[in-house]
Amino acid sequence: MAKRSFTDPQITLQHGAGGEATRQLVEGLFAPAFANDTLAAMEDAAALNADGLRLAFTTDTFVVHPRNFPGGCLGSLAVHGTLNDLAVSGADPIGLSAAFVLEAGLDTSELRAQTEAMAEAARKAGVPIVTGDTKVVEHGSVDGLYINTSGVGVIRPSADLGPNRVRPGDAVLVSGPIGDHGVTILISRGEIELEADLKTDSRSVLPLTSALLDQLGSGVRWMRDATRGGVATVLNELVGGRPFGVVLEEQEIPVRDPVRGCCELLGLDPLHVANEGQFVAIVAGDRADEAIRALRNVEGGSDARIIGVVTDEHPARVVGRTSFGAKRVIDVLVGDPLPRIC
Amino acid sequence: MAKRSFTDPQITLQHGAGGEATRQLVEGLFAPAFANDTLAAMEDAAALNADGLRLAFTTDTFVVHPRNFPGGCLGSLAVHGTLNDLAVSGADPIGLSAAFVLEAGLDTSELRAQTEAMAEAARKAGVPIVTGDTKVVEHGSVDGLYINTSGVGVIRPSADLGPNRVRPGDAVLVSGPIGDHGVTILISRGEIELEADLKTDSRSVLPLTSALLDQLGSGVRWMRDATRGGVATVLNELVGGRPFGVVLEEQEIPVRDPVRGCCELLGLDPLHVANEGQFVAIVAGDRADEAIRALRNVEGGSDARIIGVVTDEHPARVVGRTSFGAKRVIDVLVGDPLPRIC
Repeated sequence: MAKRSFTDPQITLQHGAGGEATRQLVEGLFAPAFANDTLAAMEDAAALNADGLRLAFTTDTFVVHPRNFPGGCLGSLAVHGTLNDLAVSGADPIGLSAAFVLEAGLDTSELRAQTEAMAEAARKAGVPIVTGDTKVVEHGSVDGLYINTSGVGVIRPSADLGPNRVRPGDAVLVSGPIGDHGVTILISRGEIELEADLKTDSRSVLPLTSALLDQLGSGVRWMRDATRGGVATVLNELVGGRPFGVVLEEQEIPVRDPVRGCCELLGLDPLHVANEGQFVAIVAGDRADEAIRALRNVEGGSDARIIGVVTDEHPARVVGRTSFGAKRVIDVLVGDPLPRIC
Repeated sequence: MAKRSFTDPQITLQHGAGGEATRQLVEGLFAPAFANDTLAAMEDAAALNADGLRLAFTTDTFVVHPRNFPGGCLGSLAVHGTLNDLAVSGADPIGLSAAFVLEAGLDTSELRAQTEAMAEAARKAGVPIVTGDTKVVEHGSVDGLYINTSGVGVIRPSADLGPNRVRPGDAVLVSGPIGDHGVTILISRGEIELEADLKTDSRSVLPLTSALLDQLGSGVRWMRDATRGGVATVLNELVGGRPFGVVLEEQEIPVRDPVRGCCELLGLDPLHVANEGQFVAIVAGDRADEAIRALRNVEGGSDARIIGVVTDEHPARVVGRTSFGAKRVIDVLVGDPLPRIC
């Protein structure tokens, strides 16, 4: 990818929104300072070699606001988010960490509820929370409670994932309806007045990624959970600077009605809205149907869908095609950050 | 250890100070919720089994205030702290993560300086920062900049460390003068008016722990870096509920003059003050001199000292003995938290 330098004099909310500004900060400031090949790969989880064993290692801090929303909370999100980064790396997670920054004055009842939600999410996924840290700062020095989770997993020997494995003719699939998390948070904040029967999609995608890898092995080329910046952002990160692009069949992209309605009201594209329980996968084109069958056999996989194809016709670009054949370029989100969505 | 329940209705600064209140929170709330044997071991790093390979995994969030102080800064501290947790676990670190929570409006120049300090500390230790995360929250929702680092290491096959390996007659050693970090931070905050030629001890202790393990192998029984709560706290955690105690020879404990002076002024015991580049080790009694020689051969190890002995005379207690033979119980810090020391 082209080298970027970071020249903004101050940090703004956009730098945390997962779009172009975030990319500039990461590629222009952090990556050059920490320069190493593993970080340069810019995957959701780093691949580490430990005496010949391939490990995946990832970290995320969760600052979602509000901390409780339909279908989930900060605590469950913090566990699912890190599990999912390991899952899309083809790893079987072996342990999570939990590091809390607490505001003095926080009610213990809330801390207990968030902690129990973390414990429940971890238990359900069968992955233990094995180490932690607690810091308390003065009232006003943090907004209640932030949680960092990091995770370690063992990458399956059969998993061979990476942008370099993607080729024209491969199929693009999504594990289910997109945008549920982001829109749920917007509604919870009161940023849009809407009575919608909608909840976050926050969940562990491990059962789904496992089923896919079990069935297709190296027929799975690449996977990524579509969090901040949504499906559009992860696909743009995939194709950026590469000799291939992606065409999405817009009518195939699963979007629930309230998400579509809310996005229309706000002028948002569901492809830019954060998900916390959906991932995008690139699979060998001739095994696409097999991939969908494998996902639909798993609880929570019934809405998986092939939404597009990898092409060499427009390298480095993500293009959407409507049912009428019209095409548009689908770029990353530049303005209008949706801060604190996770 | 006796089961504790956590009944405080609100979180206070004391719960983050590393003393008795922190222990109550961790043992009374987090540990029961996340219940698993690895976490229950309550070591600085968790030991994970990855296909037969022993891994160490640890996490810490750094919220030190002020962010720059003599001899170090938030960024270097964040790297050293996590490296040291791996080091005292007998692990060779293979990768660190860096997760930032940034306040909107933070000057890029400060972020760059902290990032470069992290990179420099990691480079010096020879351990790459391989994965990261960036969140930005509204002005006022975080105090500038907090950094979480997590780390993964491979535990040396020859390392056999744990409280269960400690026995009466073992020697207690400390790697150098205690209290430098905590007192440096207090002076930097202006909490005490003192012109002292003092700087933080923040550093990676990896060269020291490596030398010790290389020389003594399983003759090293247990190690712990003496951060929040100081040497007194880590030794009390070691002996708590166990059939042995520790006697410290008070005149052998290395303390620099400005630290001693400052502690006297503030009514603090240097044994309760945080260190960020010193560790306590328990080694086989008949190999104590060999241990000290090994440490003194390493740069930064010249002030290592035997400061006490493990005894079965007063189980579960840490006792200090003055040169006049008087004895006192050295407990953990209960009141007077020193918040945001790391």
